[in-house]
Amino acid sequence: MIVYCVEVYVKPDNVDDFIIATEKNHLSTRKEPGNLRFDLSRSDDEDALFFLYEVYKDEAAVNAHKQTAHYAKWRETVADWMAKPRFGRMFIPVLPSDEKGW
Amino acid sequence: MIVYCVEVYVKPDNVDDFIIATEKNHLSTRKEPGNLRFDLSRSDDEDALFFLYEVYKDEAAVNAHKQTAHYAKWRETVADWMAKPRFGRMFIPVLPSDEKGW
Repeated sequence: MIVYCVEVYVKPDNVDDFIIATEKNHLSTRKEPGNLRFDLSRSDDEDALFFLYEVYKDEAAVNAHKQTAHYAKWRETVADWMAKPRFGRMFIPVLPSDEKGW
Repeated sequence: MIVYCVEVYVKPDNVDDFIIATEKNHLSTRKEPGNLRFDLSRSDDEDALFFLYEVYKDEAAVNAHKQTAHYAKWRETVADWMAKPRFGRMFIPVLPSDEKGW
């Protein structure tokens, strides 16, 4: 499995639009067979900071996600709304040690 | 709900011990009534970087967690194993919009 964490700083005027666009991506991504999670959270003390926590079954599932129309649409839609380039990192799950926990 | 993200840089010699100690904390924390997730992941390209993704029902659940013996034990046990102070941030869940998704 693969955990993909992304930090996104959104321009203040585009926060509502960003949430709407990301919800569309979230709903479609959760239907992908290789996707296990797609959480969006908002910073407690920085209104413009959002955090995406995406979990995929394997690298093939990540690649499949990147080729979907909903991901392309999201990426294009939100591009101009970012206050700075988004910062993504990949992690490998350790716990829960049982795959069913994900 | 509250999402708590923590980045931990572990000294290379203490990585195995860190995982063992964190699994103990993970197993006990998952039994707390107010805890929804306690994921540990390891960076794909930085061996010493770990990421904790904890989700609690509310602030009372976070405070209850901080008062548990297993959290105190973990905190004390891993303190000397950190290569630098751990970096924690709080987030408020946005998506899934349904609490059941968490």
